[in-house]
Amino acid sequence: MNDLLEKVKEGNDRAIARVITLIENSDKAAHTAVSALYPSTGQAHIIGITGPPGSGKSTLVNELAKRFSADGERVAIIAIDPSSPFTGGALLGDRVRMQELAGQDGIFIRSMASRGSLGGLASATSAVIKVFDAAKFGIILVETVGVGQAEVDIARAAHTTVVVEAPGMGDDIQTSKAGILEIADILVVNKSDRPEALRTVKALEMMLHMGQAADIGHHGQLAQREQSLETNPQGWQVEVLQTVAIEGEGIRELAEGIRAHKAFLLSSSEWAQRENQRVRSELERMLQDRFMTQFLHKIPKGSRAHLVSAVVNREIDLYTAVDRLFKQFSE
Amino acid sequence: MNDLLEKVKEGNDRAIARVITLIENSDKAAHTAVSALYPSTGQAHIIGITGPPGSGKSTLVNELAKRFSADGERVAIIAIDPSSPFTGGALLGDRVRMQELAGQDGIFIRSMASRGSLGGLASATSAVIKVFDAAKFGIILVETVGVGQAEVDIARAAHTTVVVEAPGMGDDIQTSKAGILEIADILVVNKSDRPEALRTVKALEMMLHMGQAADIGHHGQLAQREQSLETNPQGWQVEVLQTVAIEGEGIRELAEGIRAHKAFLLSSSEWAQRENQRVRSELERMLQDRFMTQFLHKIPKGSRAHLVSAVVNREIDLYTAVDRLFKQFSE
Repeated sequence: MNDLLEKVKEGNDRAIARVITLIENSDKAAHTAVSALYPSTGQAHIIGITGPPGSGKSTLVNELAKRFSADGERVAIIAIDPSSPFTGGALLGDRVRMQELAGQDGIFIRSMASRGSLGGLASATSAVIKVFDAAKFGIILVETVGVGQAEVDIARAAHTTVVVEAPGMGDDIQTSKAGILEIADILVVNKSDRPEALRTVKALEMMLHMGQAADIGHHGQLAQREQSLETNPQGWQVEVLQTVAIEGEGIRELAEGIRAHKAFLLSSSEWAQRENQRVRSELERMLQDRFMTQFLHKIPKGSRAHLVSAVVNREIDLYTAVDRLFKQFSE
Repeated sequence: MNDLLEKVKEGNDRAIARVITLIENSDKAAHTAVSALYPSTGQAHIIGITGPPGSGKSTLVNELAKRFSADGERVAIIAIDPSSPFTGGALLGDRVRMQELAGQDGIFIRSMASRGSLGGLASATSAVIKVFDAAKFGIILVETVGVGQAEVDIARAAHTTVVVEAPGMGDDIQTSKAGILEIADILVVNKSDRPEALRTVKALEMMLHMGQAADIGHHGQLAQREQSLETNPQGWQVEVLQTVAIEGEGIRELAEGIRAHKAFLLSSSEWAQRENQRVRSELERMLQDRFMTQFLHKIPKGSRAHLVSAVVNREIDLYTAVDRLFKQFSE
């Protein structure tokens, strides 16, 4: 393993692939790898790319990877596929995409479809990001499918979050949309050769505008945001960019936008803040994993099953069951 | 509070609304409410409805609620909006929908947009389901936006999961789609008056067919599924239904499909299995919440912040930090 990790730090592709597989299959391997590689991390620009199915996100990510690669960057793509451990569908998609990127030097694509023993996709993703970071990939593109809570969380762990839409998708009253816009550092309307594209751009710009207006009266996360806007009076202006990924159009501008966002983060206190936030949430998640591992180890399977049955049969309620389990654990 | 909970059990709308608000704002209230109401739960048919934005899901849910209501059921809608605590966008959407359902006796709609102290949407949703269940709502529709991991998890907590698509959305190679199809008990192509509808139906049917073929060679969750298919040789045949929710078309057939699924669950061992699975995952989540609460209480804020800084500065790695924190907690 140590030999393998040394090779990872040298950027050896086969070593990287093997370590990722080990990480996916074993907590212990993840522990060893992340501990050993951690001092070598912290250089990569982590970019989250999210958006609904059908927005052409994968093509966009591929094109963006090629663009960064052509500019001399080593690029890793982590394609998160939260819901297909079952069918192996990810493998098919992966093969198609790998073919597309074959021969592109310095682009490494890895799809995370399985939920291994690491206790969830978020943990595995975070460990794999560290592998690429230590292997001196300057750009790590984390692509998430969908627009759910997990996607929001993974995107929050990135330095720069790009939200991709397609024409016609942002036109209804969509309560979810407002939330996803809040996490976007850059908005992209892909498939912008379609006639409805401009309308979607306008709709998104309007929602952005409304969001900024709403900032003023709010508290909590928004108060924090206001604060950071105060320390950096210019703030960051979220832009709506247009692309036709399949034709390679607008990709250069998007790459420039992403670089500009990085420059903004570094010149303000935002980079440090985001690093801090990421570490905090990673520690919290890992602590929970640790707790569950210890818990499953300590409380016999039979007594857990017994309690589950009692709850199902309404003999005791959930909270009483949790009280008992937690007490057993703490003894 | 006790008085309020008694009124909940009598089905008093204002008491229900107040208890839900209390639950959203306080762990302690959730504890009290769920403990008190739990023995009265277990009667409701919990139906998860999920699908991408733009599929017309909300309209479909409204129409379905009206249908069930017309058939004499008390219906609750829980509209999950994971990502808009920020802008208050959900409130707007809610008001529009409430107007739409105003005057419909026995339909209660509640949108869950905030992430209160309950430590996450999943916990809050689960508590609110129990309130409606105890208040003798026979049908609880849980509507999730998006197609992410959180949505899959929430859908898994339902007895019956309906996945909604719109024409043209299932035509690309979408690795995520296969996974979301796996959780569907019923598939719906809404907006089926569009010309591409039939093609989407065919595409989904093909994916379903492929999924069933894939079942044979797999393990884990699929092995479990095979097993349950063996104990009930007929199994459950996932159907693709077509609706035009905005015109009320196909809603009756969907309601019938949902009832047929319930009948299947009850006649097989599946209902008990799903109840068991739900309780297990709820207990696990509540245990984690309990642990984190205890942890935050026990480890001073300063020493946590100190450790986060050390990790950010690469003085120690994440795993070492977790080791220390967990040790401090266990002492």
